[in-house]
Amino acid sequence: MEYYQQEIALPPFKRGFHLITPIIEKNFRALQKLEIGMLNIFIKHTSASLTINENADPTVRMDFESHFNHMVPENAPYYRHTFEGPDDMPAHLKAAILGNSLHIPLSRGKMNLGTWQGIYLCEHRDYGGPRRIVLTAYGKTN
Amino acid sequence: MEYYQQEIALPPFKRGFHLITPIIEKNFRALQKLEIGMLNIFIKHTSASLTINENADPTVRMDFESHFNHMVPENAPYYRHTFEGPDDMPAHLKAAILGNSLHIPLSRGKMNLGTWQGIYLCEHRDYGGPRRIVLTAYGKTN
Amino acid sequence: MEYYQQEIALPPFKRGFHLITPIIEKNFRALQKLEIGMLNIFIKHTSASLTINENADPTVRMDFESHFNHMVPENAPYYRHTFEGPDDMPAHLKAAILGNSLHIPLSRGKMNLGTWQGIYLCEHRDYGGPRRIVLTAYGKTN
Repeated sequence: MEYYQQEIALPPFKRGFHLITPIIEKNFRALQKLEIGMLNIFIKHTSASLTINENADPTVRMDFESHFNHMVPENAPYYRHTFEGPDDMPAHLKAAILGNSLHIPLSRGKMNLGTWQGIYLCEHRDYGGPRRIVLTAYGKTN
Repeated sequence: MEYYQQEIALPPFKRGFHLITPIIEKNFRALQKLEIGMLNIFIKHTSASLTINENADPTVRMDFESHFNHMVPENAPYYRHTFEGPDDMPAHLKAAILGNSLHIPLSRGKMNLGTWQGIYLCEHRDYGGPRRIVLTAYGKTN
Repeated sequence: MEYYQQEIALPPFKRGFHLITPIIEKNFRALQKLEIGMLNIFIKHTSASLTINENADPTVRMDFESHFNHMVPENAPYYRHTFEGPDDMPAHLKAAILGNSLHIPLSRGKMNLGTWQGIYLCEHRDYGGPRRIVLTAYGKTN
């Protein structure tokens, strides 16, 4: 049994949905040692989030941005938290809807994702800057 | 301490929200060995999802289908990813909103769910076919 | 390696979004023993939920309540599950959208949250009463 943990800063991404699966794999080699286990990815922010979705056609990620802007609009008349800019309160809401952590099963030293699954960083601010994530992997070593 | 993992295919479900708690319990007996621990259920798809909600009145599950169809409509004018059919892009969005994995505490060899909680498979495609899930249970054995 | 588990009842909260980070820290001292690990918080209800978001300005939490009431309205014409009151079906939907469990990395005996992150109890019923949560912490002891 083993626990591995590492905190990394992602490069800044522009507002939108971005595939980061290779960044996780490259930066967290420890997960290769786990025969059976889990990987947790936790983002330490309240206006960016993480989700898993289609890793192929980039229009899926564009439609995510369009739909979330529609479902959680800027400048809604009922917002009171407005002093950090029109993109701030929607960013908090989007982050809560999508969630700030993922759990992925590990099997034979790899993330056991479906063929079409990729990890998305969801940047909800116009200028979010670099985002910090905590990677924790644990399980039975091989 | 122990880790157990098993991948299973669910039978195909029609579009909508379906209770699958008994399928999990029947197929993954290993969790009975855990005195304290966690169960992770991970769906390896991007157009079906998992959630926990009311396990009694079937109208709750019907209202989930109605509300998600309203909140994430087919044929929204801003969708660009349309070539896999009108139910495809909404399915990706619904899956991200609801989430693709669940974590349930294990206590004395059982899922420690509330009285009214059941596990839902959320099938967002018209014809999604059989869905694969990875079950991982870990903790202190009894 | 160690697993700790504890079930507690939260005090009743009024409908809305409430910071409960200090309640978790005070009631679950066991997590201080973990050098590297994870904390799971699981709510055993289907009309209240948990999320992580901004811990400073209270208007953020007010805007959460406003936006979720807008996105998941009471008395939608398509609801069939209406006999438990107008706040009941929206509460189930909100709970599924936000999620009923959180996973937070533990580092050197503390939750490794970002500076602005706090744990929210999201009470979606008008009179939800006390809510039960299961706390499970596990990892490498120090």
